[in-house]
Amino acid sequence: MKAVSVSELNSFALDVLGRCGVSRQDAETTAEVLVTTDSWGVFTHGTKFLGDYTRRLRAKGLNPQGRPAIQKEGAAWAVVDGDRSLGMVTGVFAMKLAIEKAAASGVALVTVHNSYHFGAAGYYASMAAARGQIGVAVANAIPSVSAPGSRGPVLGSNPFAFAAPSAHQGAMVLDISTAAVAGGKIMVAAAKGEPVPEGWLVDNKGEPTSDPNLFLQLQAFLTPMAGHKGYGLALMIEILSGGLSGGALREKIGRFVDGPGTAADYSHAFLAINPGVFLGESAFAGRMDDLFAGIRRLPSSRGVANIKIPGEIEQARRREALASGIELPADVAEVLRSVAIETGCPMPAFLG
Amino acid sequence: MKAVSVSELNSFALDVLGRCGVSRQDAETTAEVLVTTDSWGVFTHGTKFLGDYTRRLRAKGLNPQGRPAIQKEGAAWAVVDGDRSLGMVTGVFAMKLAIEKAAASGVALVTVHNSYHFGAAGYYASMAAARGQIGVAVANAIPSVSAPGSRGPVLGSNPFAFAAPSAHQGAMVLDISTAAVAGGKIMVAAAKGEPVPEGWLVDNKGEPTSDPNLFLQLQAFLTPMAGHKGYGLALMIEILSGGLSGGALREKIGRFVDGPGTAADYSHAFLAINPGVFLGESAFAGRMDDLFAGIRRLPSSRGVANIKIPGEIEQARRREALASGIELPADVAEVLRSVAIETGCPMPAFLG
Repeated sequence: MKAVSVSELNSFALDVLGRCGVSRQDAETTAEVLVTTDSWGVFTHGTKFLGDYTRRLRAKGLNPQGRPAIQKEGAAWAVVDGDRSLGMVTGVFAMKLAIEKAAASGVALVTVHNSYHFGAAGYYASMAAARGQIGVAVANAIPSVSAPGSRGPVLGSNPFAFAAPSAHQGAMVLDISTAAVAGGKIMVAAAKGEPVPEGWLVDNKGEPTSDPNLFLQLQAFLTPMAGHKGYGLALMIEILSGGLSGGALREKIGRFVDGPGTAADYSHAFLAINPGVFLGESAFAGRMDDLFAGIRRLPSSRGVANIKIPGEIEQARRREALASGIELPADVAEVLRSVAIETGCPMPAFLG
Repeated sequence: MKAVSVSELNSFALDVLGRCGVSRQDAETTAEVLVTTDSWGVFTHGTKFLGDYTRRLRAKGLNPQGRPAIQKEGAAWAVVDGDRSLGMVTGVFAMKLAIEKAAASGVALVTVHNSYHFGAAGYYASMAAARGQIGVAVANAIPSVSAPGSRGPVLGSNPFAFAAPSAHQGAMVLDISTAAVAGGKIMVAAAKGEPVPEGWLVDNKGEPTSDPNLFLQLQAFLTPMAGHKGYGLALMIEILSGGLSGGALREKIGRFVDGPGTAADYSHAFLAINPGVFLGESAFAGRMDDLFAGIRRLPSSRGVANIKIPGEIEQARRREALASGIELPADVAEVLRSVAIETGCPMPAFLG
């Protein structure tokens, strides 16, 4: 299959979302988040999710005409009701609000409930960096990750993203799961019939296991990143997102395996910090140049060109994608073909 | 050695700090942080540090009469110049300021430069929880931790702490290093002549090593927690603390091995969030009760009484310490004896 251009992939996403009743503006927002994520090479969180999202939009678990609204606010904070909109629609709405408030207040925290899976947390943190601010984005999700001493899942793989701008060295963008590994890696091992490394899974007695099939049977669960540390960070994220927004917590969050007509009530939180008030915007960006360039110049080990600033690899992939298109992995193309058929969208050439 | 009471240990700390020219009020602040930390059983970050602090106070690397001052501020933020005060004095000053601002603004971020090692980050986060708020505390330090692909240290073990209150279930207090393990564990292995587990250290070629002696010779360095994730979080902390305060970054921070007369310029950042504005304070605290109690009730694996909320073990140790005193480890007692001698303080009975 040849590479698809960013604009072709974007047009396809707009088309299928429109066919599910999503407004042009909300479809543009959603397509931009998902296609940007694919252009970073983060295919697990990009347009592949159109499969799930379009099914939920058509079954009305997601509200195609949802309008996120400010429920309560102050100069430096707000609570947003997502109105069961697409997570990208609520996420972009809330992060823009945080950036706007931080521009005046120096710092702002916006929490969101009644939303859904919002794709890559790093997208929202990057929105702040693109405007010269520092951004943090977190979200909760249905429990799939064990805690030290548990016999089952305790919290979601609750992602954490942070971004900071520089003047000339690109933005730092960190986007991590608080699980030790992504569930997708376990599924790959199961498909190949291979065991997974020690430390990735615990079974329903809380004992380590290397059998990926137990994970598929909900008899084994992911471990948290770095043990109690990842569990603690996931609990922090649960509190900042669902806890501070009034949204669902832990097992009360809707599950992927529930019918697509079920409301999910995911929560998010977005923090924006305006370095301009602390130090002056250009002084801060210059300090970040020195910090990032200083790390890049440090001696690296054999076979490593330079020590990476988080997000550097994804930004290089994006430049490549904008110049030469995106090579969609086979699993993504397969999902997109189903989406075209299910939504009655003519099959685009790049999926032919 | 019999247990020392919290008040006896506190009196000793007050006495030695007073003998180094620290005011009664600042000595009380410092003693409270360090003795509370010991009462949690976190002896690596408690009164043991009086050895280093009193030497620096007497050599004037730390300013015994330092007065942290607000350099610049808004309703929801401030930059504090620590005036080379003890890290506990600047830390408590700045976290109090963040809590006060968040009470009115909903959220507040205070950054600090020109400070020093502030002990346990969890103390400052807990200050917010004790007042019904959410707290975050971070700090940078001289590089001692490698990054993926590095041949040497890139960032400090930059700690991260988060605390959230509940109505009846105690506070959650997470306090973690972004290094995989504490340097102290490497020193214990070296003293015993034992190798350390794979994954704790990399040598100056960036290759894994299990030889703890290389660490003592500055030929091997700690690994970040969870690889690129811990490195990314440490870089985030560097940015929030030193980056946003105008303080020293990375190798420009003063080193423990420099003479005690050298200024160190550590930086911190403190975030406070007032849940009252988001949801109403009692609604939030009740939600945290449900969240924490729900996790504690989950089935646990063999030999585990219940899944722990971060900070639970330390809070139980503190109740025990307040009732029955603190059993100081031998290494702490030895440091405190030296401190008594060096500062001309009569040897207290509990060190006899």
